[in-house]
Amino acid sequence: MRTQVAIVGGGPAGLLLSHLLHRQGVESVVLESRDRAYVERRQRAGMLEQGTTDVLRGSGAGARLDREGLVHHGIELRFGGAGHRIPITDLTGRTVTVYAQTEIVKDLVALRLADGGDVRFEAEVLAVDPSGGTVAFRQDGVTRELRADYIAGCDGFHGVCRAAVPDVRTFTRDYPFAWLGVLADVAPSTDELIYAHHERGFALHSLRSPSVSRLYLQVAPDADLADWSDQRIWDELATRFGTPGGWKLKPGPITDRSVTPMRSFVAEPMRHDRLFLAGDAAHIVPPTGAKGLNLAVSDVTVLARALTERYASGTSALLDAYSATCLRRVWRAEHFSYWMTTLLHADPGADDFDRRLQRSHLEYVAGSTAAATSLAENYAGLPLE
Amino acid sequence: MRTQVAIVGGGPAGLLLSHLLHRQGVESVVLESRDRAYVERRQRAGMLEQGTTDVLRGSGAGARLDREGLVHHGIELRFGGAGHRIPITDLTGRTVTVYAQTEIVKDLVALRLADGGDVRFEAEVLAVDPSGGTVAFRQDGVTRELRADYIAGCDGFHGVCRAAVPDVRTFTRDYPFAWLGVLADVAPSTDELIYAHHERGFALHSLRSPSVSRLYLQVAPDADLADWSDQRIWDELATRFGTPGGWKLKPGPITDRSVTPMRSFVAEPMRHDRLFLAGDAAHIVPPTGAKGLNLAVSDVTVLARALTERYASGTSALLDAYSATCLRRVWRAEHFSYWMTTLLHADPGADDFDRRLQRSHLEYVAGSTAAATSLAENYAGLPLE
Repeated sequence: MRTQVAIVGGGPAGLLLSHLLHRQGVESVVLESRDRAYVERRQRAGMLEQGTTDVLRGSGAGARLDREGLVHHGIELRFGGAGHRIPITDLTGRTVTVYAQTEIVKDLVALRLADGGDVRFEAEVLAVDPSGGTVAFRQDGVTRELRADYIAGCDGFHGVCRAAVPDVRTFTRDYPFAWLGVLADVAPSTDELIYAHHERGFALHSLRSPSVSRLYLQVAPDADLADWSDQRIWDELATRFGTPGGWKLKPGPITDRSVTPMRSFVAEPMRHDRLFLAGDAAHIVPPTGAKGLNLAVSDVTVLARALTERYASGTSALLDAYSATCLRRVWRAEHFSYWMTTLLHADPGADDFDRRLQRSHLEYVAGSTAAATSLAENYAGLPLE
Repeated sequence: MRTQVAIVGGGPAGLLLSHLLHRQGVESVVLESRDRAYVERRQRAGMLEQGTTDVLRGSGAGARLDREGLVHHGIELRFGGAGHRIPITDLTGRTVTVYAQTEIVKDLVALRLADGGDVRFEAEVLAVDPSGGTVAFRQDGVTRELRADYIAGCDGFHGVCRAAVPDVRTFTRDYPFAWLGVLADVAPSTDELIYAHHERGFALHSLRSPSVSRLYLQVAPDADLADWSDQRIWDELATRFGTPGGWKLKPGPITDRSVTPMRSFVAEPMRHDRLFLAGDAAHIVPPTGAKGLNLAVSDVTVLARALTERYASGTSALLDAYSATCLRRVWRAEHFSYWMTTLLHADPGADDFDRRLQRSHLEYVAGSTAAATSLAENYAGLPLE
């Protein structure tokens, strides 16, 4: 079995890469270990940078995004009993869009199948050989080998591809807190996302649609969902968001809940021989800056361009630059995500000096146009190089 | 012995307060434990915010500053073998001025004496009573009592005044490095200050005049001057500054050297009853942001206004607001100084992740107008409330 580009992982990175390559006449096979229903159900990120929506639209994958995506022009920082709007569009000329990752996955799976793409679910990758360009995988109980010019490792943090880079150097930071996230069948209590800092911890009011709210609470890293009744979740959210100007949080039925630890992680380099890592396979950010999905999209956009150039003209300059090009953006996003996280969370190890600095920092970001613009330009996403 | 305002400490804060009060017809006595020659010789800060020069000029204390001060419009950040200019005036409309603190002290001592001011050197304060409004001090071997309506504690970090605030709450951060500072009789190798980040540590090229350079090296907190020969100092400075674009550091005779530990410190509140703390008596910043002297000037400017209002109209609203008004600015400067310090120094406790974040942060500040403006507006000094 042979193809031009073997893509390990059928999440948004792998599917989008396959779609972008197809648009340029480059053939690929996507190998995804889970079944289609599982992949289309995974709850993940939901805030798209303008650059991400540009890529989806520009490649013909934006039809439902255009209909159902909610375009946002700002976010609210809430602390000290008051809200402070960061007018992202006024400050940067760009917008962000609420559209769940799981919806993008559904759109891309449908597109790839309609275009006759080779997307294999329940195809477990056993080993990749970056030099030989082979991928061993098991499907329907049979082990097979896929041979390719290039391999894209889009198989996430726990995937097999990263381990195939022999001299990989990793950079890690674990945080002393996690996020308890819930989906609730209730109209959002806000039009724009609210990032709340409270002495008891961070809270985020996000949304999925006009009738579905997405809410997060900072909790201990070892928090047990069994300790968090619906009532306790809503009470804690209400305490952290407060009631500035009579604002009130509307509770509703919780349909999904999970605890996610917070981690920063980068693997360097992002390429070895014929293997190119993209998305969570190469880097993880804490979710505070909403950068994880957007980084995956920028990685595969860079990779699709580089592979297209390689097949069109035979030159591999962009492929050779892939790792360095991506890592500049990755580290910018890592720094921003770290910055947003430490700005907004209550660090259990902080002393009084740290807390006073944090408060002054929050007031400065809320009060200075330069500081707010710095937040806004990172949040909306810096231009792709 | 009686006066309206007893001022403990004859550094720039105490002298300027006395001068500002005199201009508004308010009487004061300044008590300074050291002799005049010592006070006029102390090497301290040398970079003035525009707000600081505005206060000095506006009060008639700017004649020599206008002749000899060097107005600067930018600073250079140097890292990764290249320089990156932060054009402060272009970004903020404001300037900064190189004029040594020791020169300000000379100007203010001369002015106060010419105006018949009561400035007592070698007058050691033994105790202050914030409620009674009395200051006990010893001069010429005689212990005396000064009675006043108000007491200004301008006696620095090691002074007696802060201890007289009964419920003072302190916030401290010590850094794992110090600055080795030298004065050298050599024309500066740069027109604008150079803040250099190097893996071996931070270095700063500042200046005092067209013929005197002021240079700093990050060293271990317990560094011994005996270990630092002139040759070693110049070699280490040359290594950290590098030679971007053929630039070269000119060495010369070193005339003064010292090691200063780095500390952040704030005491709250800054007022108790009739006692008002100002400058280093209430707060210390690491020198990276050049904020120490400027904070002292803003404190006493706020205090002079408040005392003037009190004597002119009998209302004490500004005096009652003194601590809160100053602390907002103090914490902004504390955060900025911490930020500049961590941005530029090599932290011996940093791991690889920290170092990559720091590098991305430096590149971002050098490359983003918003981020550079944020640095510039803090460096030039945010407006006095």
